[in-house]
Amino acid sequence: MNDSPFFPDLDAENEDQKWMRLCLELAKQGQGITSPNPMVGSVIVKDGRLIGSGFHPKVGQPHAEVYAIASSQSNSESIVGATLYVNLEPCNHFGRTPPCTEAIIKAGIRRVVVGMIDPDGRVSGKGCDRLVRAGIEVTVGVEEQACQELNEAFVYRVKTNLPFGILKYAMTLDGKIATHTGHSYWITGKSARQQVHILRSTCDAVITGGNTIRIDNPHLTTHNLTKHCPLRVVMSRTLDLPKDAHLWQVNEIERTLVFTEKENSNSEIKKYLSDRQIEVIELENLSTLTVMTELGKRGCNQVLWECGGNLAASAIAEGVVQKVYAFIAPKIIGGGLEAIAHFGNSQMTSALALTNTQITTIGEDWLITGYLSQ
Amino acid sequence: MNDSPFFPDLDAENEDQKWMRLCLELAKQGQGITSPNPMVGSVIVKDGRLIGSGFHPKVGQPHAEVYAIASSQSNSESIVGATLYVNLEPCNHFGRTPPCTEAIIKAGIRRVVVGMIDPDGRVSGKGCDRLVRAGIEVTVGVEEQACQELNEAFVYRVKTNLPFGILKYAMTLDGKIATHTGHSYWITGKSARQQVHILRSTCDAVITGGNTIRIDNPHLTTHNLTKHCPLRVVMSRTLDLPKDAHLWQVNEIERTLVFTEKENSNSEIKKYLSDRQIEVIELENLSTLTVMTELGKRGCNQVLWECGGNLAASAIAEGVVQKVYAFIAPKIIGGGLEAIAHFGNSQMTSALALTNTQITTIGEDWLITGYLSQ
Repeated sequence: MNDSPFFPDLDAENEDQKWMRLCLELAKQGQGITSPNPMVGSVIVKDGRLIGSGFHPKVGQPHAEVYAIASSQSNSESIVGATLYVNLEPCNHFGRTPPCTEAIIKAGIRRVVVGMIDPDGRVSGKGCDRLVRAGIEVTVGVEEQACQELNEAFVYRVKTNLPFGILKYAMTLDGKIATHTGHSYWITGKSARQQVHILRSTCDAVITGGNTIRIDNPHLTTHNLTKHCPLRVVMSRTLDLPKDAHLWQVNEIERTLVFTEKENSNSEIKKYLSDRQIEVIELENLSTLTVMTELGKRGCNQVLWECGGNLAASAIAEGVVQKVYAFIAPKIIGGGLEAIAHFGNSQMTSALALTNTQITTIGEDWLITGYLSQ
Repeated sequence: MNDSPFFPDLDAENEDQKWMRLCLELAKQGQGITSPNPMVGSVIVKDGRLIGSGFHPKVGQPHAEVYAIASSQSNSESIVGATLYVNLEPCNHFGRTPPCTEAIIKAGIRRVVVGMIDPDGRVSGKGCDRLVRAGIEVTVGVEEQACQELNEAFVYRVKTNLPFGILKYAMTLDGKIATHTGHSYWITGKSARQQVHILRSTCDAVITGGNTIRIDNPHLTTHNLTKHCPLRVVMSRTLDLPKDAHLWQVNEIERTLVFTEKENSNSEIKKYLSDRQIEVIELENLSTLTVMTELGKRGCNQVLWECGGNLAASAIAEGVVQKVYAFIAPKIIGGGLEAIAHFGNSQMTSALALTNTQITTIGEDWLITGYLSQ
């Protein structure tokens, strides 16, 4: 059992932590595809042995607990008296599926271990209350930090109605994302670029600007790394966009959505896009915040900003960037385009600090991540 | 003996490597103060025991081998039949001091272990030849890479007549060295800034431009971290410089040298500086290359570029930067001044690659170093 890849940390302090970590690993199977729902994994343990497991695969499908219960029952194991682990508080309301609390009670589970309470203030704690009232022993907060981190985007959206924004850019060691002519292929090496595809696969949408399309003509897909591709979102006030952009090649997996402004948009391109089944949304006021608000309404938990310096600066200034992924390549270009344009700071002391920073070596490049404390 | 701080690597593969590493540690005692000479350390070992050691402290003083021989003789140990280790081939010519080869032969040393051959093609190999002809066993190339690295600046100057150039800058995670108003205090934290003082202490000169003096008014000293302070060099075509700059406060340790152009310089400031015992050199054509050529003539092995983006770009374009020290702070400023200005690249594929890169965490910041392959 210890050889299983599901046990990333064999030194877990106790059994509860060990099983909760397994829940988190299972939950990650739904990365990028559960929105607007969170990623949830669940395991059922009896006499120290794993008798059932499951994860939430997709909105509209059953929750992790239901899969775990079903799998232990199909294993002909008696689930009665077992312990159920789940990284997020079981729901106690009818949503798209019946409440998990009732399924847990009905199955005869004796103890439930919960990683974190539901972040939605209107329902948080109610699932645990229901279980306790049914005579089930409930433990809350095991591996809580890891549980919060896994669903940080979901938690953020539930609390703010806005998606969790990630700004990603790749720059040279002298801080440039392109030469002065806009040429940027490639700054980082293959490993770092693949890491970007993985990052995209964890996001519900990726946003770029008209300039990036005109200059870079990106695909913004996961390049078949996963079956999931984030919704590709374009912000363009004028719709002054080329007809041969890669983003207009859409299919069931690789979709594109264009935001523009009512007053200014080029109606010819608008018709061209609509003919291609590409949705064009006309906002009264096109801004990073209005776009994120709309994506929040559509249930996006996590959105990636892959854009030029001006749009990045607006996104930061409007508070829709929560985390930064900066890829740094060991090369010097001299001059060129900046990662983030001016957004009002004139003193170094008013720079935005990143917290919980991490650095990783990826091939010949580096990745620095951190959270913007706003 | 193994507890001594002089043995940084206790897993050294064999005795020769172990003693050579001790030579390198001793050699580093002369860091920043031996130019135009190299850093050299030497130990004498008999029957597996250290009986003498020394390093070259300063130009005009005896070489490391002579100190090592003297220290073993003063220890009343019989040096006859011992092995002498030294990281650089002993000299075989009369320079400022008599040849070390003769002192080694006279002392009765039986074996000499040399880290690397003298890089000067006119004399390299001759020291070892002389020892072999005197019947001494000579081993060459022990820990050679580490020996080459320690004296990379000396080796570079001997081969090119130009100092080894290091470009240092501190930037935000979005690649800026100052806000758009030029404000840059402070980008990095205290630990990184102290690391810069240490870096300065290893250099013979530090070069900056008139703009940096006007905007930043830096001290460019080692802030009493060491007794050695690099010569502070200013490049200013016009001498349009403020009279109250910190760099004009000079003393025996903290000196300043100003390069300007004959045609354009402000004669009032020129007189003001000369009155303060600050040397002003008027070049026909002021450029990063003419300045480095002059500093090479003055015996500078290693020179640090601490300047704005334009001067940095010129230094790179003129080939006088061999190594880059990029300090990166976990903060976002948005817009601002660039580390290195445009110097001709319009395609990312023509970016200058850094080799042998290293990354270090320093407090809350990071330092990336690498060599420019030109």
